[in-house]
Amino acid sequence: EVTLTRERYRVPRLPFSRLSDSDLAFFERMMPGRVVTDPEELKPFNVDWLKSVQGCSKLMLKPQTTAEVSQILRYCYERNLAVNPQGGNTGLVGGSVPVFDEIILSTFLMNQIISFDKVSGILVCQAGCILEKLNEYLEEQGFVMPLDLGAKGSCHIGGNVATNAGGLQLLRYGSLRGTVLGLEVVLADGSALDCLTSLRKDNTGYDLKQLFIGSEGTLGVITAVSILCPQKPQAVNLAFLGCQNFSKVLETFTTCRAMLGEILSACEFMDEKCMELVERHLKLSSPVTGSPFYVLIETSGSNSTHDKEKLNNFLEQVMTSGLVTDGTVATDDKKIKTLWSLRERITEALTHDGYVYKYDISLPVGKLYDLVTDMRARLGQSAKNVVGYGHLGDGNLHLNITTESYSHSLLDAIEPFVYEWTARYKGSISAEHGLGFKKKQFIQYSKPSEAVVLMQRFKAMLDPKGILNPYKVLPASS
Amino acid sequence: EVTLTRERYRVPRLPFSRLSDSDLAFFERMMPGRVVTDPEELKPFNVDWLKSVQGCSKLMLKPQTTAEVSQILRYCYERNLAVNPQGGNTGLVGGSVPVFDEIILSTFLMNQIISFDKVSGILVCQAGCILEKLNEYLEEQGFVMPLDLGAKGSCHIGGNVATNAGGLQLLRYGSLRGTVLGLEVVLADGSALDCLTSLRKDNTGYDLKQLFIGSEGTLGVITAVSILCPQKPQAVNLAFLGCQNFSKVLETFTTCRAMLGEILSACEFMDEKCMELVERHLKLSSPVTGSPFYVLIETSGSNSTHDKEKLNNFLEQVMTSGLVTDGTVATDDKKIKTLWSLRERITEALTHDGYVYKYDISLPVGKLYDLVTDMRARLGQSAKNVVGYGHLGDGNLHLNITTESYSHSLLDAIEPFVYEWTARYKGSISAEHGLGFKKKQFIQYSKPSEAVVLMQRFKAMLDPKGILNPYKVLPASS
Repeated sequence: EVTLTRERYRVPRLPFSRLSDSDLAFFERMMPGRVVTDPEELKPFNVDWLKSVQGCSKLMLKPQTTAEVSQILRYCYERNLAVNPQGGNTGLVGGSVPVFDEIILSTFLMNQIISFDKVSGILVCQAGCILEKLNEYLEEQGFVMPLDLGAKGSCHIGGNVATNAGGLQLLRYGSLRGTVLGLEVVLADGSALDCLTSLRKDNTGYDLKQLFIGSEGTLGVITAVSILCPQKPQAVNLAFLGCQNFSKVLETFTTCRAMLGEILSACEFMDEKCMELVERHLKLSSPVTGSPFYVLIETSGSNSTHDKEKLNNFLEQVMTSGLVTDGTVATDDKKIKTLWSLRERITEALTHDGYVYKYDISLPVGKLYDLVTDMRARLGQSAKNVVGYGHLGDGNLHLNITTESYSHSLLDAIEPFVYEWTARYKGSISAEHGLGFKKKQFIQYSKPSEAVVLMQRFKAMLDPKGILNPYKVLPASS
Repeated sequence: EVTLTRERYRVPRLPFSRLSDSDLAFFERMMPGRVVTDPEELKPFNVDWLKSVQGCSKLMLKPQTTAEVSQILRYCYERNLAVNPQGGNTGLVGGSVPVFDEIILSTFLMNQIISFDKVSGILVCQAGCILEKLNEYLEEQGFVMPLDLGAKGSCHIGGNVATNAGGLQLLRYGSLRGTVLGLEVVLADGSALDCLTSLRKDNTGYDLKQLFIGSEGTLGVITAVSILCPQKPQAVNLAFLGCQNFSKVLETFTTCRAMLGEILSACEFMDEKCMELVERHLKLSSPVTGSPFYVLIETSGSNSTHDKEKLNNFLEQVMTSGLVTDGTVATDDKKIKTLWSLRERITEALTHDGYVYKYDISLPVGKLYDLVTDMRARLGQSAKNVVGYGHLGDGNLHLNITTESYSHSLLDAIEPFVYEWTARYKGSISAEHGLGFKKKQFIQYSKPSEAVVLMQRFKAMLDPKGILNPYKVLPASS
């Protein structure tokens, strides 16, 4: 059983209205059959994927159109009812579920592809499309989505944009801030903002859509997305390598960046603890074993002969120089998927290990693993496991700590130490997960107070009653 | 002699204070020797590069530090003095020079590189660094800037970011919205906002810096930039090709995108009129002649043998299929530069042809040249030349019309026709040049009124007195 957020964190409920019978009747009339009030049915939407936070919403609404989202928000704004926008509910910082009784506004039924243009590669779709489904659709047309992440089977593109998801191929295709070309957003008062252009370039005024990218549903509800998709690579290769220490991991990265250049599409790392957990809890087995660190390198290119030659040159270089002591290469889809799952399913393996304290840190790449080592030494026997993995090419560490069950004293041993450590090296306390509910109090470790004040002013301007995803992203303004 | 903007466009001066002797004395005390008041010395900074607009500023200030910019703005805000931030003054929409007597705040002396990290490829520098100088510095370290444009010899990186410059390699390296990692900005009231992070990923709160990218100096003055730089390519190749009609140009583009894939770094086009002007006014000569259209394709990669093979396969394909009827290839720096200058110097050639009406339009790529054809037919003999060129890969047309001298009746024949045409195909009336002074009244052709109102609210919030680059970007709020 997951502890209620309001109990574990003792936050006070803000003075929003409480749901009345006449509110329910209004929604039932407006969208019959798409109003969920059954507590059992609501449960999975009140709890996050990590089972770490739980709200007590009594209502979930499943609009199909932007007009319905507008109507819902207009009503909620008028009535001062708080709203929790929700996509695939795969968030890792407690941003995607209610804290109290916020109405869950699900994009689940907003799953239509609006258009795809094969000449430009621009896809326009509703916010509730599942990332993996979009990718399958695009692959048939010779294109792919410009992002990929472990949660692709359930996350919604609207949620990806709302949280500025990074993922496994950011190194190659860049951030959503560059690839998202347009958004349609419904604001707190129900007014729709149509910035859903399908143009590669548009410099007419301020780029309003950027404010909503990464705002985690606190400034508006994203209802549709226009996104630039790259061509599907003709050839994909994967190398899974073992390294004897982290400085060899780093050198392997700089070597592959230099030698693989434009075909490098991912460069990930994991420590041996991660591998142990994936093997123990998920029964996956790795063809490469016995190394303290593993590096996964993916190439995507337009010519398989050229790509193999580049990859072989690189492998020869890292093997003969001793940077890499063991490794395997995959060129067929099946083996590629198997190797990727060793990396992609670490998050899942961790949930089987107990309660997980998750940290998603940006650091100068040379400092990336020191935080894991320091944390391990600091916590000693009080933690079950302290593991590090992540997006090497982006300087993004996922530091995870497990215990049998949630312990407040262990949390005190970790925080604010982890944030102070990160701030010392001018890192970010949230590289890609966002702040959500769990990290909002720590924003000052990565942002100066003037920036936080300005964010609060933007929030107050766009959502004066604060009904959109309350208790998230920003600390209460002083 | 350039007509004064206030006379040609008959705009009313807003009620800002006028510069007093005590204001001048304040600045002289604050930054002796970096205060320009001599009318002759001021002249080139009051007139834009196109010589199409002219202000009558009586003062230019040349701060060296962010603290000085803060001090200047705090004073101007207090005194209600309008300020025109200015970089290299290479803007093409009248955004970079005063309309009336705004104080020119030049980034000319803010030209220090703050840091460059060879592992991450992240450059941090002051806003007044010249783009070409930065690139030269980076090349020595094995990196390049992620943008390139014709004005590189004089434009400042701060101005590039403030206008969200696109340029010649956006196709490859993406927009500044993805590559700019951090900004330092001074707001209208003189307060500094430090968002100058050097991290590839940072999802802690709203991405404030995005509001300043492309805001053309109306929301704040960018004082420093952190930007992600790609590795310098090992091999660069250029193909300059002749095509018999625009549909063959389009097919050449889709073919090169498919066959050159990840090594494609630019895909530009120009019509024969452009070539005539470059030859006539600049005495350049092209090795490829006699075609109605020319396509310039650049590859940048990490392996010259692979790249040449890909390029040769592509060339064989387009030659044998008749898409391309003539062409030349360059692999050495000198010939590459010569061929690039045919494309890069079109803007310059046009200024020698008379008064230039410039339009910078985003369109679905299939429609790109129809606007040129339609405009040529519409204007007939009343225009000297109607030419089209631009960034094919980005769907970005530069439509230029020349006459012996400025004619208001010709302008009436062009506008709003050109904007209505663009809006009909859901294009953008400014792909990369911005709105500046000349295009601000036309924003509604590309943005819905709710978006414009929201932009005006952001402007009012960040610059309540409206002192920053007034008369630009947004129409006056109603």
